[in-house]
Amino acid sequence: MRILVLGGDGYLGWPAAMYFSARDHEVAVLDNFAKRNWELELNAQPLIPISTLQERVHTWKEVTKRHISYVVGDLCDYELVRMVLRRFRPEAIAHFGEQPSAPFSMIDQRRSVLTEVNNIAGTLNILWAMHEIVPAAHLVKLGSMGEYGTPNIDIEEGFIEIEYHGRKGVFPFPKQPLSFYHLSKVHDSHNIMFACGVWKLRSTDLHQGIVYGVATDETELDSRLATSFHYDGIFGTSLNRFCVQAVAGVPLTLYGTGGQTRPFLNIRDTLRCVELAILNPPQAGEYRVFNQFTQTFSISEIAETVRAQAQKLGFAATIEHLPNPRVEEEEHHYCARHQKLLDLGLQPRLLSDVLLDSILVAIRNHAYRIRRESILPRVQWDGASGEAGSANETGQLGQRAATDNSFLSVGYSFEREPAQRSSLMGCESSS
Amino acid sequence: MRILVLGGDGYLGWPAAMYFSARDHEVAVLDNFAKRNWELELNAQPLIPISTLQERVHTWKEVTKRHISYVVGDLCDYELVRMVLRRFRPEAIAHFGEQPSAPFSMIDQRRSVLTEVNNIAGTLNILWAMHEIVPAAHLVKLGSMGEYGTPNIDIEEGFIEIEYHGRKGVFPFPKQPLSFYHLSKVHDSHNIMFACGVWKLRSTDLHQGIVYGVATDETELDSRLATSFHYDGIFGTSLNRFCVQAVAGVPLTLYGTGGQTRPFLNIRDTLRCVELAILNPPQAGEYRVFNQFTQTFSISEIAETVRAQAQKLGFAATIEHLPNPRVEEEEHHYCARHQKLLDLGLQPRLLSDVLLDSILVAIRNHAYRIRRESILPRVQWDGASGEAGSANETGQLGQRAATDNSFLSVGYSFEREPAQRSSLMGCESSS
Repeated sequence: MRILVLGGDGYLGWPAAMYFSARDHEVAVLDNFAKRNWELELNAQPLIPISTLQERVHTWKEVTKRHISYVVGDLCDYELVRMVLRRFRPEAIAHFGEQPSAPFSMIDQRRSVLTEVNNIAGTLNILWAMHEIVPAAHLVKLGSMGEYGTPNIDIEEGFIEIEYHGRKGVFPFPKQPLSFYHLSKVHDSHNIMFACGVWKLRSTDLHQGIVYGVATDETELDSRLATSFHYDGIFGTSLNRFCVQAVAGVPLTLYGTGGQTRPFLNIRDTLRCVELAILNPPQAGEYRVFNQFTQTFSISEIAETVRAQAQKLGFAATIEHLPNPRVEEEEHHYCARHQKLLDLGLQPRLLSDVLLDSILVAIRNHAYRIRRESILPRVQWDGASGEAGSANETGQLGQRAATDNSFLSVGYSFEREPAQRSSLMGCESSS
Repeated sequence: MRILVLGGDGYLGWPAAMYFSARDHEVAVLDNFAKRNWELELNAQPLIPISTLQERVHTWKEVTKRHISYVVGDLCDYELVRMVLRRFRPEAIAHFGEQPSAPFSMIDQRRSVLTEVNNIAGTLNILWAMHEIVPAAHLVKLGSMGEYGTPNIDIEEGFIEIEYHGRKGVFPFPKQPLSFYHLSKVHDSHNIMFACGVWKLRSTDLHQGIVYGVATDETELDSRLATSFHYDGIFGTSLNRFCVQAVAGVPLTLYGTGGQTRPFLNIRDTLRCVELAILNPPQAGEYRVFNQFTQTFSISEIAETVRAQAQKLGFAATIEHLPNPRVEEEEHHYCARHQKLLDLGLQPRLLSDVLLDSILVAIRNHAYRIRRESILPRVQWDGASGEAGSANETGQLGQRAATDNSFLSVGYSFEREPAQRSSLMGCESSS
């Protein structure tokens, strides 16, 4: 099958591209390296050194004799999207091409608007170009379980039948996301559902849980095929971050009580889920949602599990509770259905000691690259560390500088004195 | 009270600015004239000649001795939004500043993305600037009843309690909008609700029905204070359009059966509703929704009513059914609650013969300006008049030209022969 992987240079996109190529699909990758740019801006480098996309594709050819096509370009450039669809004529489009971080989207106005505009416009462009050029193609979109929030009723897979005042209807499950990033995914979901209805497109919206893991069968073929593994406060997610903290000998940091329950899955299962969706496409006009995760844990359970296993390996792991930088419930009901992918044949790789060992060992092999100062959260959801509410005439750049050093991690570094603002210091700490 | 009217040069924004000024509020208007630009682009001029914003403000001063401040600028320019909030420090912000047309949003990729990006980014900018500068201000946002779509259960005001598998929760009412424009309003609603929760802002989201009418107490003071009344296929809405068709002696055009039920309200009630919201602000952190309409009618009922009254005035009005250019249900359940504004004191001005007479007479006074060719729908929701699905190498400009003349109304006019494409003809018809 001809599979176009959008965002194919990323944590999940690159392994997906190799996974499909290894299974005899014809694969093309589109990426504009926006994520690598944001990493540079925020000084958040992945743990394991990664090659450029061009080197990756070259290595893949060298190692497997297989060819992955690539285009460097931006989904927000409609003419480019049209060109790629006309030239490649994909049968399936795996869409990982979005700004992927909730903390990033909460840093400031610019990143918030960037996240929503980038994600929404890119997805709209794909929908319009599919409508025009490949209306029978199947859009497999990476959404998020975070779109649902933490409602007090059980979470269904995308839709819920509501009986109300004696009448019934089937509705998109009402969404209550908790960041501008997750909001962007909700907006995408609404847009895609509409496009499927009005243009008879077909799409699977994978509401994905928190992905953990560092390796797939394909990344392990050659160190130059490694994927982008993050543990920092912006792009890192909890389980991956805990493993890095354990190896680094710093406390595993829980946000608040750690009672937040979240859905998880292994990176290898992510690839299999996307494959199952692609191999079993929906009907023309059908918009369907798969809840894509294999297990739920509270964040403190995850931390305890990582601590126990890390200690067996000789790491002196401890756990610390931080004031929660997010605005979220820490104790809540959480029961989410995740049946549809199992019905299609998913055999979950559950979190195990062996799996954790392999992650911890992979991290240990790159422990020299861990930068401890980038692990802690730098973004406050409620803006409390900024000066919200005060009329700060010095503008946004000064907003965080007045109260803390967190601005050092979000792309600018000025001396504190307004008079000296013109002495731009790059990203060096001024303390 | 200091009231900032965003989009204060528009059909509702300008009357709102005068309404509040007349009632001793301190009023500032922000507008970038985007709507006037889209009108030029689509050759869709309002029925009644309107003054520039500067002339309007000057006339208002001359007639009433009252001052309305204004800023010409774009809500998507964050520094401008910050400047306006710092300088004016509004206590209430009435937000009419969005691309307001469903057909516009369905014309093509460019207008679809423009609609969502413009509306979402503008509203996000307001939220961030409120958070930073005037966190106690009240955002009164013009949303749409079209956000709900036409569900098979009764529509509540913004929220619904769902009981499911023995558990209960209160949820945002699930939205099923039917155009990219309405989707943009849904996205706004989600963003605003989140911002109220996380930053303790306060907002009223007015889910407004279809507004009809041409005059308010303030527009009637002087012809130079008239508001922008549209009857064309892009910016005109059904009741207004039917009145113009009746006066013009062309058939009142129903889309499909006309069985679609929609909520309506008079333009004077719109102003009163916004005032009621402003005078009764929500608590800090509260996001509330008012369903803002006074009556529901099927579109064919509206057409029949207009026809009957027009005939009494001597217009030979007839009704014609067109193939529905939209993708929507034409026969459906529709029962929407609209209690909260009544509870605050709204006394609806119901649609009456007298009211219709006044609209028809106002239109008759400007009948010489009616351009019949702009009345009929030019935008097909399903893209059927374009060449969706074919790989059209000549690109988007050629997409509609090949099959019909509808492209003449959407901002470009080329001779039909590709070879002659370079002879740009402005907006003259090539037929």
